[in-house]
Amino acid sequence: MNKVETLIHVLSEDNKELLTKFLYDAHPIDVAILLDELEDENLVRFNSLVTSQDMAKFLEQSTIELQVRLIKLIDFQAIVNIFSFMSKDDVADILGGVPIKMRKDLLKLMKKSDTIKLEELLGYAEDSAGGIMTTEYIALRRDLTTSEALSKIKNIGPKTEIIETIFIINDKKELVGTVDLRDILISPEDKLLQDIMRENIIYVYPDLDQEHVALLVSKYDLKAIPVVNHRKSLLGIITVDDIIDVIVEEQTEDMLHLSGVSKEERVDSSLLTSVRKRLPWLFINLITAFLASFTVGLFEDVIAQVVALAAAMPIVAGMGGNAGTQSLSVVIRSIALGEVDLKNNWRLIFKEVFLGMINGAATGLVTGFILYLKYGNPYLALIIFIAMIGNLVIAGFFGFLIPLVLKVLGIDPALASSIFLTTATDVCGFFLFLGLAKSFLNFLI
Amino acid sequence: MNKVETLIHVLSEDNKELLTKFLYDAHPIDVAILLDELEDENLVRFNSLVTSQDMAKFLEQSTIELQVRLIKLIDFQAIVNIFSFMSKDDVADILGGVPIKMRKDLLKLMKKSDTIKLEELLGYAEDSAGGIMTTEYIALRRDLTTSEALSKIKNIGPKTEIIETIFIINDKKELVGTVDLRDILISPEDKLLQDIMRENIIYVYPDLDQEHVALLVSKYDLKAIPVVNHRKSLLGIITVDDIIDVIVEEQTEDMLHLSGVSKEERVDSSLLTSVRKRLPWLFINLITAFLASFTVGLFEDVIAQVVALAAAMPIVAGMGGNAGTQSLSVVIRSIALGEVDLKNNWRLIFKEVFLGMINGAATGLVTGFILYLKYGNPYLALIIFIAMIGNLVIAGFFGFLIPLVLKVLGIDPALASSIFLTTATDVCGFFLFLGLAKSFLNFLI
Repeated sequence: MNKVETLIHVLSEDNKELLTKFLYDAHPIDVAILLDELEDENLVRFNSLVTSQDMAKFLEQSTIELQVRLIKLIDFQAIVNIFSFMSKDDVADILGGVPIKMRKDLLKLMKKSDTIKLEELLGYAEDSAGGIMTTEYIALRRDLTTSEALSKIKNIGPKTEIIETIFIINDKKELVGTVDLRDILISPEDKLLQDIMRENIIYVYPDLDQEHVALLVSKYDLKAIPVVNHRKSLLGIITVDDIIDVIVEEQTEDMLHLSGVSKEERVDSSLLTSVRKRLPWLFINLITAFLASFTVGLFEDVIAQVVALAAAMPIVAGMGGNAGTQSLSVVIRSIALGEVDLKNNWRLIFKEVFLGMINGAATGLVTGFILYLKYGNPYLALIIFIAMIGNLVIAGFFGFLIPLVLKVLGIDPALASSIFLTTATDVCGFFLFLGLAKSFLNFLI
Repeated sequence: MNKVETLIHVLSEDNKELLTKFLYDAHPIDVAILLDELEDENLVRFNSLVTSQDMAKFLEQSTIELQVRLIKLIDFQAIVNIFSFMSKDDVADILGGVPIKMRKDLLKLMKKSDTIKLEELLGYAEDSAGGIMTTEYIALRRDLTTSEALSKIKNIGPKTEIIETIFIINDKKELVGTVDLRDILISPEDKLLQDIMRENIIYVYPDLDQEHVALLVSKYDLKAIPVVNHRKSLLGIITVDDIIDVIVEEQTEDMLHLSGVSKEERVDSSLLTSVRKRLPWLFINLITAFLASFTVGLFEDVIAQVVALAAAMPIVAGMGGNAGTQSLSVVIRSIALGEVDLKNNWRLIFKEVFLGMINGAATGLVTGFILYLKYGNPYLALIIFIAMIGNLVIAGFFGFLIPLVLKVLGIDPALASSIFLTTATDVCGFFLFLGLAKSFLNFLI
């Protein structure tokens, strides 16, 4: 029996002790993964056999799908009980995923103070600093001694997400510094927090994009980054484990978008989901394919006279696409790492153009040579040599420019770049090669 | 004056106090970035004006290039002084980057105990758990009380990388559990560590690939993961901030490899570097392009009779490439997340094949219709419809299978998949379409 089957068996006994034994010392995430496999009926039974506190622990680790599924199955009071053991940001995430009417009804059942905080959290965009921050942190006043601080930490500790970094506020509740728990532990007992705090703090505003937050946390090796409003009052913190999720999510999204796949699709998504996610992208690509095809169509008379052109032309277009994708990827990576923007780096386009010239000449020379061996016509070789250089220059130019321009326009470069690039390299590649062939037609026949 | 110019100006004064003021409260990583911009002469001057301890802090955050550059500029005793303030794993990384003779000389100058540890660290592969672990951690015996533990932590704390997670060992020095500092703080003073420790520990062996380590840390939201040998003795730990670097590195590598770009290339790499990194990939692609071209060449007689085929054929090949890349990306992402392998998931290939049929039929129908409008030949429309279905089925089949097979063969799927895929979709696409055209030639003329 695998783990899921064992769990289903245990649930069929409807015995609290047996289940407790099964769950003993298990990691919440592993339990959450098992719960995902249960039918509704067993999920409800599971929930009735564990405490609200344990259920909260499992739900915090589970997918949003499971969270919403459970919420819809059990009664409102049970939900509110579970919520009371979860951190506010997780509750806000769940509430963001249920129908509005249900959300309102649930909020009515909660403590007034919780409702206010949750409504505030629900107000931030999902992928902003405000949307991923937690409000469970330790903020202490600057004039506390380290021993006073330590006893406060012992009290608040169990309810916060992290205790390694303590945030220091002044009497106007403005964030003025941070102290590592380590420094509190090793300092003399009567030392004031303001004397050991670090004042040069890295902080963010709630509307900052989560991708930028991740860059800061990873650059400065932070365990948590504070989120403040414009009066520098502390609103919440974002912890490093949530940042890991952001990094994985954003990078995966970039990679999948480059290939025209939605980040929601998984390898085991249903057939229908996959069709729905992939087909629109294929139709957009079909437009590109037709543009390329029409370009070729312009030269049907030339091809009719020199059929070898039909066999050679995919090389020019294809190599342009490959070289352009290289430029594109380097630039998109740099954009994601916050290294490059159009304003300060437009000169780098010259490098890409030169690169296209060199790589085009190198591959064009080999291509021309092989075609000469095959067809024995030096002019065909010369034409493909020139066309390759031209198309790889175009590839470098657009491969560099497209993502940066899209960025300026506020469009995700990873999502839309490749389609524009392929259009450019296909259309220009065919046009250049066949256009040259038409001009030199007398030498080719 | 920007920051670098200010620093150069400050250095020209050769004044310790001035530099200390300039560096006051700066984040080590920001200083490290500035140092990267300095000429050798200024770098040496900078080093002579700050303490070894501060220099160690900056070096720990700097690039390996800067580390090696500085090491080669200053005398061995100064280096060893700086090393004494750095964590062993950082020192090992630096030593791994200098010439062997220099490494040996430096190791001779160090304390015997350090040398042994460093040589052990140098023995692990760079991208393995052993290669990224640190040996600065807190391990306490299970029979200590929490108050004894706390006073030990106060002593050892300043020298370790993290204090949030304490590792618990038995009298055979085997790892038997972990305790959160938080739990030590809030437990009664006479409680034994073994009574509050978590026994179900996630740990890794030193030869595990760093990508797998990252998966575990991110799945279980760990602050640090222990590395043990086969007798379960603790060898070191890997902290979450190093894991972030691994995740960024591995994911970037996957994305760039898919496009045939080396992870070492940056947008501002020198022209020569870029040529050297990108040209080999373009030549590999050229082979694919020629295979496609030769396939077309087989049907030159058919094209000569129906030139419309030349304009239509890039659509079939191109759409196959696009659809295949979609499958490829979904599978590569799943492999990276450890979700899928060939043995347990080969049935999913049927889904990809069906998907290819549906998407091929949908795009093929539209393509056929447009070609019919353009050329007025229903048989051409029918042929491209069939060829699109066929090529998208092939795309789904290979897009799914290639990365998983490469994985089994121990080849990086991100690196080599796309080249095999394009070969398949180009060659099969042209062959299918032109082959069908040849069979139905009488209806097309």
